[in-house]
Amino acid sequence: MSKNVGVIGLGAMGLGVARSLLRAGFRTHAYDVRKEVLDAFLAEGGIACATPEQLGAACEVVLTLVVNAQQTEAVLLGEHGAVAAMRAGSVVIASSTVAPEFAESLAARLAVKGIGMIDAPVSGGAAKAASGQMTVMGAGSAENFAKVEDVFQAIAQKVYRLGDAPGAGSRVKMINQLLAGVHIAAAAEAMAMGIRSGADPAVLYEVISNSAGSSWMFQNRVPHILAGDYTPLSAVNIFVKDLGIVLDTAKKSAFPLPLTATAHQMFLAAAAAGRGGEDDSAVIKNFPGIELPGKKG
Amino acid sequence: MSKNVGVIGLGAMGLGVARSLLRAGFRTHAYDVRKEVLDAFLAEGGIACATPEQLGAACEVVLTLVVNAQQTEAVLLGEHGAVAAMRAGSVVIASSTVAPEFAESLAARLAVKGIGMIDAPVSGGAAKAASGQMTVMGAGSAENFAKVEDVFQAIAQKVYRLGDAPGAGSRVKMINQLLAGVHIAAAAEAMAMGIRSGADPAVLYEVISNSAGSSWMFQNRVPHILAGDYTPLSAVNIFVKDLGIVLDTAKKSAFPLPLTATAHQMFLAAAAAGRGGEDDSAVIKNFPGIELPGKKG
Repeated sequence: MSKNVGVIGLGAMGLGVARSLLRAGFRTHAYDVRKEVLDAFLAEGGIACATPEQLGAACEVVLTLVVNAQQTEAVLLGEHGAVAAMRAGSVVIASSTVAPEFAESLAARLAVKGIGMIDAPVSGGAAKAASGQMTVMGAGSAENFAKVEDVFQAIAQKVYRLGDAPGAGSRVKMINQLLAGVHIAAAAEAMAMGIRSGADPAVLYEVISNSAGSSWMFQNRVPHILAGDYTPLSAVNIFVKDLGIVLDTAKKSAFPLPLTATAHQMFLAAAAAGRGGEDDSAVIKNFPGIELPGKKG
Repeated sequence: MSKNVGVIGLGAMGLGVARSLLRAGFRTHAYDVRKEVLDAFLAEGGIACATPEQLGAACEVVLTLVVNAQQTEAVLLGEHGAVAAMRAGSVVIASSTVAPEFAESLAARLAVKGIGMIDAPVSGGAAKAASGQMTVMGAGSAENFAKVEDVFQAIAQKVYRLGDAPGAGSRVKMINQLLAGVHIAAAAEAMAMGIRSGADPAVLYEVISNSAGSSWMFQNRVPHILAGDYTPLSAVNIFVKDLGIVLDTAKKSAFPLPLTATAHQMFLAAAAAGRGGEDDSAVIKNFPGIELPGKKG
């Protein structure tokens, strides 16, 4: 009989993960606050749950892919949370981007109830989630990793094992997000300056993609700017949140992060201008006095 | 009979270029203010010139690979400059990183004397210069490009043709340097924060190199930090200068560059702490309260 696995949060990442689990043959339960998303997943062969608690009662492995720590806390330990119904020996894979200390504290609270946890933030974006090829930055005991090996096989291309103690995964993810956010803002600033100084944006993209100034984010996001298409694949608000987590964590140990703070201000400015729901590359619209490439087609 | 080509400035990039020209069979003339560097090049089969003027008299193609615009100006148009002795119809390949307006103005002044110019900043670092595999961001007339095709073949893997008007190459190079400088400073900031929060630096490097937070500079410079080796391959002072050019150019058109300005401050802080001559990755030493990996061996 196939394993019962639950996914809480059917957003850009969670839906891809849930579908990958279905494809791999798991009995895949799901919960999301949006009824229409759940109904659609039911139509694809998934099992829709009315509450996280109902999902927790049915599953031996529960993945959380909600927006932040607050939501992770609510769906696991809040009213009708999954943990109340989960059996001892089951495992939570906590994949939202959260502060390392939250991951540590969550694992400790689950351990009290005999529930294991893998601190398992992911990277790769919606496309990799859909194809079951995410990168997982995982930390947790060998025993818990063994229990979810088949689940990771269905959803990830690469699983980094970053130690036994939850928190280590979120620590690496936090540094990855620091760089991702700064690089997106830098790509926008560079393209804005290039356009201002009279360079052809498409040529700029081609040359720099093949030069020492390139980054994963430059290559991935600048095409959105060139196409004038700010449909959110990852929204401005995500980096308002993620760089906020990095800065809060740094502040707690009184550590300075000048570039992160500057990039965070740029995303905040974009959000304050009403662009929080646009693609994160829309941070280029902060720059006045330039004409951006228009939407094609 | 083989062509006479001159290289002015035998620094990290110029020496590699001069050697690549020698390998390709050109009669390669060179000038540098440091007598010992010139003597060494003479011993390798090159021709040492006592002044840029002497070099200009002998060569139909002259490459300038000095530190900045001021030096480019001096070696071409200053006292005993190359241009005084160059024949009409010869070509200058100007490869130092300079402001786009300087490249435009220089080309106009050379044109008055019948001398052609290719605005041709380069990317790739000392290793690519040594192996004749640089990337050239070139702008200049088809006629001038035709005259130096064999020279570019000897020194570059990829020559981008960015238009007929000198200035277009320096414009793209300027944007590349903006990103390169911000990415080096971001790599330092991210590794510093990772170390502060208790992550293993080598693991951080491996995971992020394969994630969305990666950049060309992250992959290239973080190994210097992990090895504790700050021998300058490209020095802090280069980015004090190059980001300074970007910011000066932006200021002239009253354009804001928040990340570039922040990164520039970080390189200035490193230089002010006496590290201007160290590898640019030494900008991580700005961050207090962390223990950096020590020098191996």
